[in-house]
Amino acid sequence: MKLLRFGAVGAEKPGLLDQGGVIRDLSAVIEDFNPDTISDATFAKIATLDPVSLPVVSGNPRIGACVAKPGKFICIGLNYSDHAAEAGMQVPPEPIIFFKATSAVCGPNDDVEIPRGSQKSDWEVELGIVIGKEAKYVTEAEALDHVAGYCVVNDVSERSFQLEHAGQWVKGKSHDTFGPIGPWLVTRDEVADPQNLRLWLELNGERVQNGSTATMVYGVAHLISYLSKFMTLQPGDIITTGTPPGVGMGMTPQRFLKPGDVMELGVEGLGSQHQKTIQA
Amino acid sequence: MKLLRFGAVGAEKPGLLDQGGVIRDLSAVIEDFNPDTISDATFAKIATLDPVSLPVVSGNPRIGACVAKPGKFICIGLNYSDHAAEAGMQVPPEPIIFFKATSAVCGPNDDVEIPRGSQKSDWEVELGIVIGKEAKYVTEAEALDHVAGYCVVNDVSERSFQLEHAGQWVKGKSHDTFGPIGPWLVTRDEVADPQNLRLWLELNGERVQNGSTATMVYGVAHLISYLSKFMTLQPGDIITTGTPPGVGMGMTPQRFLKPGDVMELGVEGLGSQHQKTIQA
Repeated sequence: MKLLRFGAVGAEKPGLLDQGGVIRDLSAVIEDFNPDTISDATFAKIATLDPVSLPVVSGNPRIGACVAKPGKFICIGLNYSDHAAEAGMQVPPEPIIFFKATSAVCGPNDDVEIPRGSQKSDWEVELGIVIGKEAKYVTEAEALDHVAGYCVVNDVSERSFQLEHAGQWVKGKSHDTFGPIGPWLVTRDEVADPQNLRLWLELNGERVQNGSTATMVYGVAHLISYLSKFMTLQPGDIITTGTPPGVGMGMTPQRFLKPGDVMELGVEGLGSQHQKTIQA
Repeated sequence: MKLLRFGAVGAEKPGLLDQGGVIRDLSAVIEDFNPDTISDATFAKIATLDPVSLPVVSGNPRIGACVAKPGKFICIGLNYSDHAAEAGMQVPPEPIIFFKATSAVCGPNDDVEIPRGSQKSDWEVELGIVIGKEAKYVTEAEALDHVAGYCVVNDVSERSFQLEHAGQWVKGKSHDTFGPIGPWLVTRDEVADPQNLRLWLELNGERVQNGSTATMVYGVAHLISYLSKFMTLQPGDIITTGTPPGVGMGMTPQRFLKPGDVMELGVEGLGSQHQKTIQA
């Protein structure tokens, strides 16, 4: 299933994208898609419904983030060997973990803000994992049972804030709108192999990222097992798994976002995002 | 006012500590203390009540984290010059920011887990700030208006996970129970000067940390203003402001937590915490 949230910021309703690409209203079935409701049981209940029986959402509503108020927004750094090379960094001996602020979450087509004083705002198309079941000390073999589904993430990053100020990467990862997620949460049964998905990003119509999750250093099952040794993963948590080559920081000369730029990005089977940049 | 949450894990109710040290039940007045309810307006409403008119909470209930489901748990690193020295690190030229997982939040007297495989679990008494009003690009002069109040935080840290694995500090900061907060959220009107509070920690009855917020490198107002350039601070967000000297990592020889240890810690005017350590 392709699950989504539609409507104005802060007033989104849950919905389902049917086979014909029509949004169906789920608000009579479930309150929202959030940490309290995301579960195998919820999804099983929705799966029993005939989409045709659900109200059609008319017009062209805004699409919200596919998860409301995730408890954690976990990111994996340098997880594609060729991206690590373009960033001038080594492939890490074990996964690099950092967090984005959950306040950075926004809808997949919302405007992305360029922070005040930013000279180096950059893009990163990524495969996002949505956790469906609590995970603490889980094995790789068990890991995928803890996945609710997958989504597209743009891990928008300010490289100067991330790398040229004191300390940790979080400063460059957490501005409002730096975390578009969606358009859909695609349930795990529809993603046959998360390690064989194309992903791409176009800047102003030019294809700049073009990769495959086949070249991830650490795959989805390993990441979940690894993370679960350091923190408990909870339903609704988002894990974004790193970006393939083609970010602005890795270009010669380097190239960064300016207000009015347009990003289009997608992951095979998970839909696409479209963002215009604006000055904060 | 001293605001708190009492009751079993996940079923806490809001309460008020009256002048006599008796817990009064606020659950008929407010649903909970969480990002949706924490505000100047909520606190003003509670302030109009006569505590004697509120039901007494009998017995000796568990005290929960003083904020439910904070959206962000922001930490400041190396923010006391003498702690930076004991850690063998420089005072940073600007504040170091990192996040703890919000799933690490627990009550002030709950058992603290030693993660599996941990050899270097350590303690850090800190002054915590609870945000009361959204803050984005706020000045230092405006900053304290965005504070709901203050609380004690133990920024429990696994030093090997934090520093000896690839990448960022988050790995050593995020285990379940690594974030006891409370016992009270003390409203800002009761804290005359957040830069002049004693704070201390005892391990098995021995005083190991003994400092004052007067020796912070970056004070509360500066931190809020600085953070608000990188992310929007939201009601209920916790900012923990760094620890004074006396952590186990800084001792010669180094000394770390083992199951059965007892930590007692407090900040002047904000109450104290008591934790026993157990093996995860």
